[in-house]
Amino acid sequence: MFKAKVIIKRRPSILDPQGIAVEKGAFHLGLTNIKETRIGKFIEFTVDTKDKMAAEKEVTEYCNKLLANPIMEDFEFTLENL
Amino acid sequence: MFKAKVIIKRRPSILDPQGIAVEKGAFHLGLTNIKETRIGKFIEFTVDTKDKMAAEKEVTEYCNKLLANPIMEDFEFTLENL
Repeated sequence: MFKAKVIIKRRPSILDPQGIAVEKGAFHLGLTNIKETRIGKFIEFTVDTKDKMAAEKEVTEYCNKLLANPIMEDFEFTLENL
Repeated sequence: MFKAKVIIKRRPSILDPQGIAVEKGAFHLGLTNIKETRIGKFIEFTVDTKDKMAAEKEVTEYCNKLLANPIMEDFEFTLENL
């Protein structure tokens, strides 16, 4: 069994309006040193198999087909033995 | 200048309907080993100060006031010198 942790980010060339909006809020709260906020996703789950290669394949497919939008997002993941 | 990376997760006791929904999709795609999917946020930004203590304070305030919902989410962050 593995614990998978996936990080999904928009590609650097793609605008992040949510990040811009929340950063404007920070500025108005007096947090003026915060710049270049980008908001992505962090997804955790378990993969119930003993074979690490099979787990990697399953996680990659999960990311490509459901979790990430391959047109505008990149993903990376780690697998940790449980 | 620091690079901050923030991970925001719902508390374990709080239901994650989005995670449940996407996991059902995975099951129907044949990814049957995937369990306990929880979807959180991953936020990156820079903090334009040389003082690490001040940066930590600013990031904590940003998380508490804007990025996370302190009622149902927990956050953790790392700061990396740029």
